[in-house]
Amino acid sequence: MQRCLTLAQRGAGHVSPNPMVGAVLVDADGSVLAEGWHAEYGQAHAEAQAIREALDQHGPEALRRATLYVNLEPCSHHGKTPPCSDLIIETGIPRVVVGTVDPYPKVAGRGIERMRAHGVDVTVGVEEDACTRLNEAFFHQVETGRPLLTLKIAQTLDGRIATTTRHSQWVSGAKARTKVHQWRADLDGVLVGSGTASADDPRLTVRHVDGPQPCRIVLDRTGALSPELNLFTDDHAASTIAVIGAERAAPSYAEALTARGGQVLRIPETPNEHLDLHALLAHLGAPDGLTERPLQSLLVEAGPGLATALLRQDLVDRFFCFVAPKVVGSGMPSVRDLGIRRMDEARTFADQRWTTVGNDLLFQGYVRAV
Amino acid sequence: MQRCLTLAQRGAGHVSPNPMVGAVLVDADGSVLAEGWHAEYGQAHAEAQAIREALDQHGPEALRRATLYVNLEPCSHHGKTPPCSDLIIETGIPRVVVGTVDPYPKVAGRGIERMRAHGVDVTVGVEEDACTRLNEAFFHQVETGRPLLTLKIAQTLDGRIATTTRHSQWVSGAKARTKVHQWRADLDGVLVGSGTASADDPRLTVRHVDGPQPCRIVLDRTGALSPELNLFTDDHAASTIAVIGAERAAPSYAEALTARGGQVLRIPETPNEHLDLHALLAHLGAPDGLTERPLQSLLVEAGPGLATALLRQDLVDRFFCFVAPKVVGSGMPSVRDLGIRRMDEARTFADQRWTTVGNDLLFQGYVRAV
Repeated sequence: MQRCLTLAQRGAGHVSPNPMVGAVLVDADGSVLAEGWHAEYGQAHAEAQAIREALDQHGPEALRRATLYVNLEPCSHHGKTPPCSDLIIETGIPRVVVGTVDPYPKVAGRGIERMRAHGVDVTVGVEEDACTRLNEAFFHQVETGRPLLTLKIAQTLDGRIATTTRHSQWVSGAKARTKVHQWRADLDGVLVGSGTASADDPRLTVRHVDGPQPCRIVLDRTGALSPELNLFTDDHAASTIAVIGAERAAPSYAEALTARGGQVLRIPETPNEHLDLHALLAHLGAPDGLTERPLQSLLVEAGPGLATALLRQDLVDRFFCFVAPKVVGSGMPSVRDLGIRRMDEARTFADQRWTTVGNDLLFQGYVRAV
Repeated sequence: MQRCLTLAQRGAGHVSPNPMVGAVLVDADGSVLAEGWHAEYGQAHAEAQAIREALDQHGPEALRRATLYVNLEPCSHHGKTPPCSDLIIETGIPRVVVGTVDPYPKVAGRGIERMRAHGVDVTVGVEEDACTRLNEAFFHQVETGRPLLTLKIAQTLDGRIATTTRHSQWVSGAKARTKVHQWRADLDGVLVGSGTASADDPRLTVRHVDGPQPCRIVLDRTGALSPELNLFTDDHAASTIAVIGAERAAPSYAEALTARGGQVLRIPETPNEHLDLHALLAHLGAPDGLTERPLQSLLVEAGPGLATALLRQDLVDRFFCFVAPKVVGSGMPSVRDLGIRRMDEARTFADQRWTTVGNDLLFQGYVRAV
């Protein structure tokens, strides 16, 4: 199963909104007959790849005594490809070991039922936690309808993201910044608030590593952002979604942005004059939303306003915080008022870990346990 | 020499204001003849211990072909014990390997000169950095006349030491708090400001580990602290020094505190209504100060006012910061305005390291490189 997870990971950044899947076919004597992984959205599934390779290399007889390991339940429906559970039944594979059930409504145990009904010996729940973590964004979006939200902060040891004059270049070191580019490549979308957009004019592109360019989302409730921003004018403008209040007039950059392939998304405002973040995330995670495919994962590179709003509304799933070994004293805090009065009400995290990244420290924690 | 450092460390917390010293006598074939360490202030020096043991176990002939390793230059003056360099010469030890020269004015190379003048082959500077670090508090006090100042902070990930209501129990976990007790035992003094004293009523005693009780210093410029505080009334009141402004009237606790063996120290105030921290530290580090022996090391368990003042006046030597994996948003910051305008002016640290202590993270850095 560990090998399945390693193979599955090869699809990172390429298979969304499909899950990452790896499959290994093992002979009765424990030797590996064939491996497969889901490499690209719309292409062959891992199980189909492995079965095809085993047929090529060892012929149909080999499959009739093989065991198939796969980290996610084989599918039972006709999607972009025929159902894998049928292929397993047809080729006579007698035994299948599954990491986790597929939560996708069209599968959700039906693949397992189908195989069992045809006499396949199916074991479910091997390395289940690791298999769930691997596809946590897929599971999250299927179960909640929202992308898995990772709040990323880069701050000084004393919790400041900029000095009193808003100067912020650079808080963390080159290795930390490279890691952020890797996250951008691995996740489906990256989101910033209007404060960060106007103060830093970020590009939010993948530069220091190779990888796909995520969808770029910028909050601009009143539509007041400058049309000169990189997000609206650079070569990746087609990947930009500007989010404005539902009742607002078209912003000055709307026409030029849509001409470049970008989009303006209207989202209701709340009574206290903020964008309705629940509505926004539901929209981004919906199969029929503005993006070609639903966003399963979103990296939020937040200033204090947005970070605080997301934390208060319990919309953060993962909290990634770089801490640079420097002190600036007063300045812009990473997080503002959360309404916490006592230290024992502080927000804490599950599955947390501290790692060093260059000279910086990286804290990673989940807001909810698996 | 590594063995000398290990032996020397056995004197931690017991030899101040003397340095920690370990000595190893090695035979011509490399076998260890004897070891010694300075165990207690006023007791035998490490070299004398090792020489005495070698004489007992192996007789005087063995010393005439031995090499003595010692992390600090052997002394040349009559202090509490006779000079070690004379003992080395008298016993005919032909070769001495020294970690670092002793900066203490009465030694300062004279021990080495004396031995060389009598034909001893002396090598100096082996593992010099490690030997200097081991006795950094001793070196610092001898060279600057001030105790080595360690600023300790315990904060949340977002840099808060208390909530908006000043609630602070607990920021860091039990293991971190135990580590602070170890530092209290290892260092000569522990200092808090009046804000911390009145808000937390700390005891500043060594409880979770075994070790000597440090001198407790509380800043109380206007003499307004409550006479009921633990620092003034508990069983360790004799170790308390309350620091008030030079021209202030005696505080309400003065008589009871001095009756218990504690002290009230008067220090000049600055024009901007703070205690003159330079004057205070010079006083605490002076050989003829209020304490029986000069303080070589001071742990400051600071709130934001004192932390900021010490950082602004460049009086911090070591910065130890616990970061707890929790977020409270607004609240009391660990450090206030340092006058920093640009991120590249941020205070940075030398020889820094990050370690985990229970669930918390500990950052340790030096303000100045060795």
